[in-house]
Amino acid sequence: MDRPIRHFQEELETMQARLLEMGGIAEERVRVAVQGLITRDVVLIDRIIGGDEPLNHLHVEIDDRCFRLLALHQPMAVDLRAIVAAVKINSDLERVGDLAVNIAEAARRYVDHPPVKQLIDIPRMGSVAQTMLRDSLDAYVKHDIDLARSVLNSDDELDALKTQVFRELLTYMLQDPATIQPSLDLILVSRHLERIGDHATNVAEDVIFMVSAQDVRHHPPTRVG
Amino acid sequence: MDRPIRHFQEELETMQARLLEMGGIAEERVRVAVQGLITRDVVLIDRIIGGDEPLNHLHVEIDDRCFRLLALHQPMAVDLRAIVAAVKINSDLERVGDLAVNIAEAARRYVDHPPVKQLIDIPRMGSVAQTMLRDSLDAYVKHDIDLARSVLNSDDELDALKTQVFRELLTYMLQDPATIQPSLDLILVSRHLERIGDHATNVAEDVIFMVSAQDVRHHPPTRVG
Repeated sequence: MDRPIRHFQEELETMQARLLEMGGIAEERVRVAVQGLITRDVVLIDRIIGGDEPLNHLHVEIDDRCFRLLALHQPMAVDLRAIVAAVKINSDLERVGDLAVNIAEAARRYVDHPPVKQLIDIPRMGSVAQTMLRDSLDAYVKHDIDLARSVLNSDDELDALKTQVFRELLTYMLQDPATIQPSLDLILVSRHLERIGDHATNVAEDVIFMVSAQDVRHHPPTRVG
Repeated sequence: MDRPIRHFQEELETMQARLLEMGGIAEERVRVAVQGLITRDVVLIDRIIGGDEPLNHLHVEIDDRCFRLLALHQPMAVDLRAIVAAVKINSDLERVGDLAVNIAEAARRYVDHPPVKQLIDIPRMGSVAQTMLRDSLDAYVKHDIDLARSVLNSDDELDALKTQVFRELLTYMLQDPATIQPSLDLILVSRHLERIGDHATNVAEDVIFMVSAQDVRHHPPTRVG
């Protein structure tokens, strides 16, 4: 069979570079949305609410590149798995972008009320979620299973923080009805951040499958750490 | 090139039959979770919380079938798009199953409190979400673009119901702090149902792309109705 190998590798690398670019934008938008919430900066918040177009364009472009790689080059084994993983990762990153908008929308409502409390756990959640995203994409590019496994561990930390945020805000709401509405928005933000962690976890699981052709989903291996 | 066409068609149909089976189970689990909430039936609720295994097995099996179809048969055009769509739909259905568990978990907490109100909008949301799921999968199997487009319309109804649920429950919470905790769980249930609608929307968009090779995501066509 006539396969233009070099051309394939170049196209594969270009697709993966675009995927990393998309990951960088998604991560940055999560960072800015959380920063807008913490600093109560409406300009930052509105920039996130209105700025989803570049990610949406990349989403369509990457999907298109993956289809062309599959259709024109008929890749096998690890290359095939890398491209199918990219299709899934692309969907995950697009939804991370949507969640950044959801965080900004909640932040936009939140700043209309006096602050409920000093935000400590939510910025921590934002930072954990960003690190998970970055590490899962690094793991994809480097085919690094250990790094991918470390992402699965961080998800537990995010989950514990979410529960803590919920319990604390529930106490505020029960004590003072004036805090109900803004507390609801903080609870939503914490859920959005947890879901961003879930998407990073999906990416990490795809990486483990891609590298090892071993399906860890629903049968998690011994976790690191 | 030597392509065992009949064998490919059989394998493709088997994979799609498994995908439909998965859709049916996911839809049924959403139905039972909502029914458990409405009837305050802890046995039903616990059956959903503990019963995610069959869906998880199907998820792994369908992914595996898709990879083998891609690797062994190197399909082109609409077949290629149908298989890549199946990979994505498979992920969406798996997450619908997770959301059914999340609904049941919220229901489990909800029944520990007196009922906040008679539930009307949440059952309605459940019914809309189930119909969206069923229609999107029908559209996949029948390559029916019109049916897929009708799913995109239903998403607006689900969104409006979610907003209505939120506003009503907020009123209850502000009036009576004893309703705060159970109301929070109902709000979470409505968000989970909204997300199930989002997954059905993803499926519908994949169908439209598969059939027309036209990417409607982020550029929705004129909606029906």
